[in-house]
Amino acid sequence: MSITRVEITPVAFRDPPLLNTVGVHEPFALRAILQVTTDAGVSGLGETYGDQAHLARLHRAADAVLGCDVFNINELRARVAAALAADTTQGGHGMSGMVTGSSTTDRVLSPFDVAALDIQGKLLGRPVSDLLGGAIRTAVDFSGYLFYKWANHPGAAPDSWGEALDPEGIVRQARTMVDTYGFRALKLKGGVFAPDQEVAAIRALRAEFPELPLRLDPNAAWSVETSVEVGTELAGILEYLEDPTPGIPGMAEVRQRVPMPLATNMCVVSFADVAPAVAAGSVDVILSDHHFWGGLRRSQGLASITDTFGLGLSMHSNSHLGISLAAMVHLAAATPNLDYACDTHWPWKEPGEDVIRPGALEIVDGSIAVPTLPGLGIELDEDALQSLHQQYLECGLRSRDDTGYMQSLHPEFEPASPRW
Amino acid sequence: MSITRVEITPVAFRDPPLLNTVGVHEPFALRAILQVTTDAGVSGLGETYGDQAHLARLHRAADAVLGCDVFNINELRARVAAALAADTTQGGHGMSGMVTGSSTTDRVLSPFDVAALDIQGKLLGRPVSDLLGGAIRTAVDFSGYLFYKWANHPGAAPDSWGEALDPEGIVRQARTMVDTYGFRALKLKGGVFAPDQEVAAIRALRAEFPELPLRLDPNAAWSVETSVEVGTELAGILEYLEDPTPGIPGMAEVRQRVPMPLATNMCVVSFADVAPAVAAGSVDVILSDHHFWGGLRRSQGLASITDTFGLGLSMHSNSHLGISLAAMVHLAAATPNLDYACDTHWPWKEPGEDVIRPGALEIVDGSIAVPTLPGLGIELDEDALQSLHQQYLECGLRSRDDTGYMQSLHPEFEPASPRW
Repeated sequence: MSITRVEITPVAFRDPPLLNTVGVHEPFALRAILQVTTDAGVSGLGETYGDQAHLARLHRAADAVLGCDVFNINELRARVAAALAADTTQGGHGMSGMVTGSSTTDRVLSPFDVAALDIQGKLLGRPVSDLLGGAIRTAVDFSGYLFYKWANHPGAAPDSWGEALDPEGIVRQARTMVDTYGFRALKLKGGVFAPDQEVAAIRALRAEFPELPLRLDPNAAWSVETSVEVGTELAGILEYLEDPTPGIPGMAEVRQRVPMPLATNMCVVSFADVAPAVAAGSVDVILSDHHFWGGLRRSQGLASITDTFGLGLSMHSNSHLGISLAAMVHLAAATPNLDYACDTHWPWKEPGEDVIRPGALEIVDGSIAVPTLPGLGIELDEDALQSLHQQYLECGLRSRDDTGYMQSLHPEFEPASPRW
Repeated sequence: MSITRVEITPVAFRDPPLLNTVGVHEPFALRAILQVTTDAGVSGLGETYGDQAHLARLHRAADAVLGCDVFNINELRARVAAALAADTTQGGHGMSGMVTGSSTTDRVLSPFDVAALDIQGKLLGRPVSDLLGGAIRTAVDFSGYLFYKWANHPGAAPDSWGEALDPEGIVRQARTMVDTYGFRALKLKGGVFAPDQEVAAIRALRAEFPELPLRLDPNAAWSVETSVEVGTELAGILEYLEDPTPGIPGMAEVRQRVPMPLATNMCVVSFADVAPAVAAGSVDVILSDHHFWGGLRRSQGLASITDTFGLGLSMHSNSHLGISLAAMVHLAAATPNLDYACDTHWPWKEPGEDVIRPGALEIVDGSIAVPTLPGLGIELDEDALQSLHQQYLECGLRSRDDTGYMQSLHPEFEPASPRW
């Protein structure tokens, strides 16, 4: 079952003007779609970042994995690592500077790992969750991911979500999310406004949704002192506080002084970060993300680590399409200690824009049923892929740059971390 | 692919009088052989300890896993854990008191996990190593496992190995091991004689085999001070020193004061031990053992942990038959960071005594080629199984008890730890 061909197709899909501490989402989000074909004729799908530097690395890796057995993910990783050994290019992390310390090898390996598992499952007639040890749950919970946002991209018509720049706007957005998808946990992307305004938004959410777990993620926009002030103020209200301040030492100090668990997908983003963070006592919860933790199998290694070290495990998300969502669902289903609702940007995507045929993945009552068809349980829509590739070619974006986009509109904007 | 039947057959095979710090191996070693059958008609094999209390737990678990999908190892574990939740029995660790802190659930789960993976592999037509991420090596290195020993069990004829009670005897034994199997690493089971005698044995081995990595394992027979003295004396000679002294704090103190890496399969024997040992800085190398770390998949979790925390990974062995050896080989093959030669008691077994058909696993040049047939790549020999079961019924042993056996011959023997 050797790999005979790897097609890498960059795509772009429309994205609303979602605000974060480094800027604002551009009108299009970029992804790369991998189609991996074997000599058995069976092919599999992977999805990853679409940034130009990352695409170049994917192509180098694709050449290196030709001939590799899809059952040998250890060899896939060794080949990818070797292909990238001489790589000195910068950037291409796909997260607009918010997550920069991830392992290049693991980031590039990820879509190959997912595609290989998709193929294994198809050959075996079993869902990917089985290849990861079996689904311990039939559906995976997701959280409603709330963003401050503008009503529209400059020059464009308002989107259906409308503006959300204050507590009322956030509560209105949350109400739509909950009514539409049934989410039973909510996360607010913070770091956009001064902390007291974001505290007010959290309090407004608590008043409107007294039973729902709430999370706040300012993406390291706060100093240690500000983090402690906000954490103290939100005692008893947050399920966890995510990345209030930058760095392992800063997080460790905040953790000593706030009452709620601290979560991260910024100070622990690769296996190299784990030991220092454990030694420093920086975090209570790690947000896994198979896109930068080396795919599904290595993400399960992370799950073993968090389980063993008494850490919680949740799941991070970037703007993504259905292949990534399917992979996230299979991974979460087969990870017994992934017991928080996972993040997803899914509701922010236009329902009609994807590269997979509709129907395989639906959020109902805040969760997604684990596909039981062989492999990832999804099917590529070739026409849709070509259409989103065409959109990529036409949109002009080649690397995610929330900061540059914001500065093009507000030249005075500076993405300082910490800002407050 | 539901489990429809689990047959558990206790067996006994002849074992030479190998000495260790808690006593001496009895004339027979006990194992339990699991045959797990599915509604697809395909069956798989597992092997584990044969102690009576462990057998009782295996039977409780066997009832609980009926109907479970063999692809759902997460559910297998949940069912085993539930079946044992009310278990208050003691003992049955299968290691004569030398490893007592392992997880009961993981110890009982292990042969079910191996059998399930054997079945998965047979259904898929792929070796178990593929289900663990793929073989990163085509052969797995083993070390020659040297023991002080008597020439014979009392009342029996001398075995072919002869006596080994001094440096000359150990070197002679090592020469036979190396000439017969081609081992390229040697380990001496110590804790039997006063430390200076064992140091002399190691020096004799170094003189005879200048190029081979050497290990010494006194099974926590030494105080911290004695460990430091021995460790200092053997500077530059040992690849690692294994469990010189009992407990996480003791090991941590020794580690600060000796020049070679410290390895363990006694102070870190379950996931619960890892965080305290890492925090204390107790060890450099963990010896994995799928028999008490919850099977092959969970042993890979341990491998992720050691890789992440900068620890070495080696593999521990008890007296075992071919099913366990096959499982060890697949696991080692698919674990990139298992880079020490693995321990095995294999040479101490009578070649004619096993429950699998001969030929699948041969030690050549110190290593065993990874089976490439589906599943574990071995076949049960029903006649041999019945013959070893008959031997179990007749031998009278029901739980391993090296200490009791030694005391029956030398009533003054006391298994103190530390002794020196």
